[in-house]
Amino acid sequence: MAPVALETPVHTNGASTPVSISKKAHAFDPATQQLPNIDPSKLTIKLNPELAAVPAPEKLTFGTIHTDHMLLLTFSPESGWSAPSIQPYGPMSIDPMASCIQYATNIFEGMKAYMGADGKPRLFRPDLNMARMKRSADKLALPPFDEQALLKLIKKLVLIEKRWIPTAPGCSLYIRPTMFGTRTGFGVTPSTHATLLVILSPSGPYFPGVVRPISLYAESRVRRAWPGGTGGFKLALNYAPTLGPTRDAAKMGYDQILWLFGEDDHLGEVGQMNAFVVLKQDDGSLEVVTPPLDGTILPGVTRHSVLDLTRAHSAESPIPGLPTDLVLHVVERDIPIAELIKYSETGKLAEVFGVGTAAVLVPINRIGYGEEGKEIKIEGGANGFGPIAKAVREELMAIQEARRPNAWSVPCEE
Amino acid sequence: MAPVALETPVHTNGASTPVSISKKAHAFDPATQQLPNIDPSKLTIKLNPELAAVPAPEKLTFGTIHTDHMLLLTFSPESGWSAPSIQPYGPMSIDPMASCIQYATNIFEGMKAYMGADGKPRLFRPDLNMARMKRSADKLALPPFDEQALLKLIKKLVLIEKRWIPTAPGCSLYIRPTMFGTRTGFGVTPSTHATLLVILSPSGPYFPGVVRPISLYAESRVRRAWPGGTGGFKLALNYAPTLGPTRDAAKMGYDQILWLFGEDDHLGEVGQMNAFVVLKQDDGSLEVVTPPLDGTILPGVTRHSVLDLTRAHSAESPIPGLPTDLVLHVVERDIPIAELIKYSETGKLAEVFGVGTAAVLVPINRIGYGEEGKEIKIEGGANGFGPIAKAVREELMAIQEARRPNAWSVPCEE
Repeated sequence: MAPVALETPVHTNGASTPVSISKKAHAFDPATQQLPNIDPSKLTIKLNPELAAVPAPEKLTFGTIHTDHMLLLTFSPESGWSAPSIQPYGPMSIDPMASCIQYATNIFEGMKAYMGADGKPRLFRPDLNMARMKRSADKLALPPFDEQALLKLIKKLVLIEKRWIPTAPGCSLYIRPTMFGTRTGFGVTPSTHATLLVILSPSGPYFPGVVRPISLYAESRVRRAWPGGTGGFKLALNYAPTLGPTRDAAKMGYDQILWLFGEDDHLGEVGQMNAFVVLKQDDGSLEVVTPPLDGTILPGVTRHSVLDLTRAHSAESPIPGLPTDLVLHVVERDIPIAELIKYSETGKLAEVFGVGTAAVLVPINRIGYGEEGKEIKIEGGANGFGPIAKAVREELMAIQEARRPNAWSVPCEE
Repeated sequence: MAPVALETPVHTNGASTPVSISKKAHAFDPATQQLPNIDPSKLTIKLNPELAAVPAPEKLTFGTIHTDHMLLLTFSPESGWSAPSIQPYGPMSIDPMASCIQYATNIFEGMKAYMGADGKPRLFRPDLNMARMKRSADKLALPPFDEQALLKLIKKLVLIEKRWIPTAPGCSLYIRPTMFGTRTGFGVTPSTHATLLVILSPSGPYFPGVVRPISLYAESRVRRAWPGGTGGFKLALNYAPTLGPTRDAAKMGYDQILWLFGEDDHLGEVGQMNAFVVLKQDDGSLEVVTPPLDGTILPGVTRHSVLDLTRAHSAESPIPGLPTDLVLHVVERDIPIAELIKYSETGKLAEVFGVGTAAVLVPINRIGYGEEGKEIKIEGGANGFGPIAKAVREELMAIQEARRPNAWSVPCEE
């Protein structure tokens, strides 16, 4: 497959540009002082003397256990980024007045490592995660960092924790880079100090049990995100407000929330995933729709990849498992819930699915809306998968697991 | 002054109602199990053997130092709320996978203790803070708690730390109740575990130096809050996204952001304060306006109190320092920035000020808007205070410092 342009270009201030910071807290500005950036050559490794037993793959759930080690770096305005340390996983000492506790200056990424048949761990499009994390840090006025240096250290950590990478289908080593502000004080001002951690968690499927479709409740009273807000960034603070509505939806028998937005209540995200809808057209072609990146939608790496794969289907690279003469019209546009209902009523709503790093691709079979128990029902094939969802998921996983050679799958090497 | 109805009623599930929680993480529900609530009778006190020196009041800034002790409670779904502990202030041990680090399940309150002339520390309308904190916890699916029991413990902590309460004008002991989720795991699900801390910080004026007016930059690209969002709740996550825009405004020479909202760019908050505008009317009366609680505005305790005081002026309780025949029309309504500009151009924009617990009341003398260096200028009297700002601030502080007896000022007693 031809290399695909990055949705968001990786910023150009890479390895050679030192990060910097002003000493005046109220005018924290990365452009005024030269400070050491992340330097992988200064890595120190302190191995854990007590290695834990790796659980059997069939016992793995999503994100509940951690490996033996973590990567740790700290930033101060006096010293810049510290020498990186790979050390035993363990609790951190945090001041109660720290910015991360008081003002939620916390960002993260979600990535996965897969074990290739050649014995090399592989990451999936990690440059996209690094670029997004850099934008997240900038959004919350956290210190900038050299994302290629961080990626190098993540690869090193994955290699050290290689034995933790599960090889069973649907399993992977989930990678959670996390950065948070550690400045102490109640003044609402950028965090001059920060900690950057990378944690690894061997994980099974995001939704436990057999692969199955999930159900959604369409939420229009609580808004997850808004233009000019933070929904387009990977920030810890986007998640806490979703917990209550998701709990309430669970009481009504739904797995996740379908977030709606705007006066027309158009589709936003699906739980913590990007939404895709497949609509039948009169000429036998299919419209593949996902909401546009208007500031309310996370620019997901999987979203990006599904757009790339489906757009390439009718051009240079047909997706295996789909008829080569099937025409897919791939569009980023708003879909009002009323339009979804109308397509459903006329039998033209072919598929709905959610995509994301944690869950990869999950079909949706029911969407509740309104207060009268109304539901959109979506027919699926085996395990609830429609043909597009099935073929795209299989292709994504084939690339991620390096069963199909592809530049998106990046090996971890010394 | 007559007692004023609470803006938000204190919830009725007080001391006698145990909190409860379901054991199933995805159906975390406070109504299904009986668990111990906060119990002040179980308080243990471990005094700090090394007491710090109390700084001179003239050296105090806002929220930079802490007292010798803190109040600590923890919640688990097995044991409910732990026995409260007053213990030496110190760092906490937090797991890197904790909910407060990964998903920003962090809430707080801002309160102040003042030393009365009778030697009794006093809190200002603490019931309003407790009720708001309870709503914040519910918003982020954190465990419920008995707010009267918490208030009792806060009073106890303030009494123990009495020597830290500064008595110089403009100084007070700032109180920061903080609660955050400590469940570990990457699944996006309510935090079954939590920590509740109360920290005290002897504080000088929020804006350092002599009392002076501050300047604002009107921001319409980044939106602080949205109806259906979180702006009406006191959550850590509302603050991190404001840091970048505030830093950028500082570079342009402005102290804080005036947050705008909607197609008409109407006024929202002022930095971390509620906004008030005073408009001259043709008949010699004044309109006192603040944005309504539409979900984008924090229901501030000081905002509430300023509304109460100004509404009472033309009725039963004139504000000292203002002519008793001055008519104030007190209104909660949207004010588009264009309306503010128009009032300014016709010489009818009398005053603009921000109010909040930390800053009490601060006059605004300049509001920059647009990209061409345009500014609204507001004339003030001594230190930039217009007559309404001056009289209201003095009255608030007289009540807070218990110089004027009032039911709003609540003594801390054994």
